[in-house]
Amino acid sequence: MKFIALSYVVRRALLNGRNCNRLGSTAVMPYAAPEMRLLFTGAANGGLFYWKRTMVSPAEAKLPEKDKEKAEAEKSVVESSYWGISRPKIVREDGTEWPWNCFMPWESYHSNLSIDLTKHHVPKNFLDKVAYRTVKLLRIPTDLFFQRRYGCRAMMLETVAAVPGMVGGMLLHLRSLRKFQQSGGWIKALLEEAENERMHLMTMVELVKPKWYERLLVLAVQGVFFNAFFVLYILSPKVAHRIVGYLEEEAIHSYTEYLKDLESGAIENVPAPAIAIDYWRLPKDAKLKDVITVIRADEAHHRDVNHFASDIHFQGKELREAPAPLGYH
Amino acid sequence: MKFIALSYVVRRALLNGRNCNRLGSTAVMPYAAPEMRLLFTGAANGGLFYWKRTMVSPAEAKLPEKDKEKAEAEKSVVESSYWGISRPKIVREDGTEWPWNCFMPWESYHSNLSIDLTKHHVPKNFLDKVAYRTVKLLRIPTDLFFQRRYGCRAMMLETVAAVPGMVGGMLLHLRSLRKFQQSGGWIKALLEEAENERMHLMTMVELVKPKWYERLLVLAVQGVFFNAFFVLYILSPKVAHRIVGYLEEEAIHSYTEYLKDLESGAIENVPAPAIAIDYWRLPKDAKLKDVITVIRADEAHHRDVNHFASDIHFQGKELREAPAPLGYH
Repeated sequence: MKFIALSYVVRRALLNGRNCNRLGSTAVMPYAAPEMRLLFTGAANGGLFYWKRTMVSPAEAKLPEKDKEKAEAEKSVVESSYWGISRPKIVREDGTEWPWNCFMPWESYHSNLSIDLTKHHVPKNFLDKVAYRTVKLLRIPTDLFFQRRYGCRAMMLETVAAVPGMVGGMLLHLRSLRKFQQSGGWIKALLEEAENERMHLMTMVELVKPKWYERLLVLAVQGVFFNAFFVLYILSPKVAHRIVGYLEEEAIHSYTEYLKDLESGAIENVPAPAIAIDYWRLPKDAKLKDVITVIRADEAHHRDVNHFASDIHFQGKELREAPAPLGYH
Repeated sequence: MKFIALSYVVRRALLNGRNCNRLGSTAVMPYAAPEMRLLFTGAANGGLFYWKRTMVSPAEAKLPEKDKEKAEAEKSVVESSYWGISRPKIVREDGTEWPWNCFMPWESYHSNLSIDLTKHHVPKNFLDKVAYRTVKLLRIPTDLFFQRRYGCRAMMLETVAAVPGMVGGMLLHLRSLRKFQQSGGWIKALLEEAENERMHLMTMVELVKPKWYERLLVLAVQGVFFNAFFVLYILSPKVAHRIVGYLEEEAIHSYTEYLKDLESGAIENVPAPAIAIDYWRLPKDAKLKDVITVIRADEAHHRDVNHFASDIHFQGKELREAPAPLGYH
């Protein structure tokens, strides 16, 4: 593992090194303001890179056709910008261009599929039981509405699943500012969860297109759920995290059912969307089944993180007193 | 640069490799639940690491004294946790232990000090002028309240400066979920800004301790500003980003005045706090002057990002149509 990790990092540093040069010559030029362009001088170490402005000589300004087209496409956006900020072109390990703005190579990961999917937090006290019952109650209308349309179900529920992490992260951020206190990394841990759930949605939406009434439903549900969870997290973060923990347990169950239908052929095991292959580092020929498997593993990790967070609160402590599970995939 | 970047990444991967072994034997044991402990199996590539559960044999469970103490300290937090999630021990390039939970080595960076500090967006239209006047008006009471107490001023204003990025990032996140649309990386770009501003606060608070009435003021100001900016960003993100752009221009001015007082000796140029040395990769003997210089450069980058975002909106486009300036330091 060590060796793999090392060689991966080296390869990527080399590629990004090459990448720097290409950017140094022409790659970023099309995006940048006329009098300047941005030179990518960073490395692959965790999004640790920055831009440096340098003048462009006309000799340098020649562009390959592909870049010219791109320039046309984005011209209107950037040329009027005085600021000349741009995203450098980033490449995969195999040298092909990184196609995503929404996430960077160093945010992609190999999911840890060895995680125990059967874990369950047995409700120990009154608040635990309230959280557990709430989730079980929420499950009834969900089952009635979606039945076995697991693709649609996953897509719709991920629009909700990406809310708690964002609410929690934001409230801890504001608390850290008010109290002049560190957060122990929990702001980032919760925001990572929210972003990961959003990536699930971005993947599912490649497979299932939402209908107009589903969009309407998402709108309503988000309006209610965001505010409800916001208030709940202020009143009792321990219950809020416990509820999320139980929601994730239900999500694992649903994805397991989804996988059964994929195995039985009730749902077609179509090829995995490109975004999923890049985000979870799946093989090029990965199928929907592989995607659902890694998504389920993600949910199991979120289950752990949220039950853990709730446990910390139940001990009368603050999250920042325990190390945050950063990058826990 | 390429070579430095490469060697840096390699060194770190090696160190983290060593780190894995140490964790594999004892390091994480004290934090973990009795029946299991977590084995760090990841690499240093951008927070790309995960934990794997493994059983612990009693033979392995012997702990060095230092770890034992740590165990005592965190026992109460983790032992009752069924989830056994923990943060692996991470080391610096020089092999010393990474002391921060609140940020990881791959989030630290060398600030780009070559950025143009004098840039100013000349108000072009009515909304620009409204934004500009608003900021100039806000400056008057601020100047009256703080006068030349720049340390206190910086600390207090950073509690506000870290709000807009979080609000913008959260609203874009929710929008991405509602619309089933990508964000072009802007969610992360704005959250990065918020986190960077929060790190400014975490640095300043090492130098200036807030008094009780200042804490009270921060509480009130956050309550008002968060809600005001939340509503403003929903009504007109272009004005919201423009206002932040102008606020950052003012921040650059204030930090320049701060530096003048440090040079003249009016404010003592004390040694830089440890957290600042690690976050901005400053030399061990860095002084407050070095810290303020990199913070000012950060503000200049935020100025660019926010004016750029506002420009995009003024062209009637959405942020996601332009590449987000991720990791733009």
